[in-house]
Amino acid sequence: MTQQKARHSRSVGHGGRREARKSPKNGDSDRVQLFGIHAVEAALANDRRPVYAIQATENAAHKLAALIAKRGLEPERVLPKALDRKLGADTVHQGVLLEAGPLDSLNLDDLDLSGTILVLDQVTDPHNVGAALRSAAAFGAKGLVMTQRHSPPLGGVLAKSASGALDLVPVVQVRNLAEALAELGGRGVTRLGFAEEAEMALEDVPLTSPLAIVLGAEGRGLRQLTRERCDVLCRISTASALASLNVSNAAAIALHWARVKNA
Amino acid sequence: MTQQKARHSRSVGHGGRREARKSPKNGDSDRVQLFGIHAVEAALANDRRPVYAIQATENAAHKLAALIAKRGLEPERVLPKALDRKLGADTVHQGVLLEAGPLDSLNLDDLDLSGTILVLDQVTDPHNVGAALRSAAAFGAKGLVMTQRHSPPLGGVLAKSASGALDLVPVVQVRNLAEALAELGGRGVTRLGFAEEAEMALEDVPLTSPLAIVLGAEGRGLRQLTRERCDVLCRISTASALASLNVSNAAAIALHWARVKNA
Repeated sequence: MTQQKARHSRSVGHGGRREARKSPKNGDSDRVQLFGIHAVEAALANDRRPVYAIQATENAAHKLAALIAKRGLEPERVLPKALDRKLGADTVHQGVLLEAGPLDSLNLDDLDLSGTILVLDQVTDPHNVGAALRSAAAFGAKGLVMTQRHSPPLGGVLAKSASGALDLVPVVQVRNLAEALAELGGRGVTRLGFAEEAEMALEDVPLTSPLAIVLGAEGRGLRQLTRERCDVLCRISTASALASLNVSNAAAIALHWARVKNA
Repeated sequence: MTQQKARHSRSVGHGGRREARKSPKNGDSDRVQLFGIHAVEAALANDRRPVYAIQATENAAHKLAALIAKRGLEPERVLPKALDRKLGADTVHQGVLLEAGPLDSLNLDDLDLSGTILVLDQVTDPHNVGAALRSAAAFGAKGLVMTQRHSPPLGGVLAKSASGALDLVPVVQVRNLAEALAELGGRGVTRLGFAEEAEMALEDVPLTSPLAIVLGAEGRGLRQLTRERCDVLCRISTASALASLNVSNAAAIALHWARVKNA
């Protein structure tokens, strides 16, 4: 699995722009606690991820042994309970906690704009953003663009929900999403915004690559300026106009549709 | 919203078979704690849901005032912290906790088999099952069938993730899923199973109503007998055979596709 993940990382990941990284931090903290087998495995396999220390149960240390050794880490053996205490009993840590650093922050220049990217407009829930990132990886999206403010930190909860995708898919945090969308438009990216009240349904939109799938938070949806920067607005056909979709499910549907139509 | 939800309930909900309910309990406990505005709102609006007591913040009580009154409940005013203590600090209760009873348990006879139903084979995570149920409601699915064992209780966590759909979409828990699928087949339902290694892609399957979308747990997938009871197996096209999808995302994609193709 480890080898496969690493290969997957290279193909789905940062494309050919590895040299263009920006300097230091992604968030305001310089330490990130990553947990869960897939999240930690992907972080260990990602050469751009600084790693400092790892605590693991016997079982988890065994599963991750090759990558732990490759990174020159000495796992501190712990019982699951110790991690429960550290992370909260409701946290599904799967017996492993990695003390890591954030990834270098990226900007739009770092993205491979040859395919589909996902854009989230102030989606605040780390589980949702993580799940959307996981779908982005699954469908081969080239990146995730999100707002710097009103977005979750790129930390443990998001990474766990992303199930490794945080270390596979480039994430760009932008100060001004409307400007970022304008820039993407200037580079020939079709910006497809999702809005419940749009007249056109996703299945009727002619999808062309490069494509940006632009989704807002549940309830609030896309902000006005975000909407104005989109080339097309569409909706996902549901049973009733009142039906609301979880944003990560909406992302999965849109990403799958884009993949099928572009294929 | 309250009125709209109630209407939505009737249209998406149990179809015309309201008389055919089975007798008592759904789970082993006779009390269910429901929390979160949407989950509690849908429970209050559902005449088949027994309700006993409600604790709510000023704000939540205001939002749900009409339904609380209709049910003849006297809300106990609480501060958010009191619910944090009761439910755990990580629980997103949105200021409301409803002490309710389980819904009457249903069997396959209770389902409206005119459209699409969702079938989950031993999916254990309540968040995932709840999210899948929410998508089922959004896409107008007629019900959810799941195994009695290795499925989550129909309780608060599932209900919160379902965002009200637990009180909108009929849920049938079956002892033997292979037998249930055989029975559905006998009634003319096409059983479409999802398996990563299937040769046919979802977009190439001719979808006909009535349809059962059959999904297994992440990783393990469908059990052998479940697979054998399906008429067609298909996969969701991803970027790589290694890419794995969250089961609720897979459900959303399949339900959306079925809706678009049957429409």
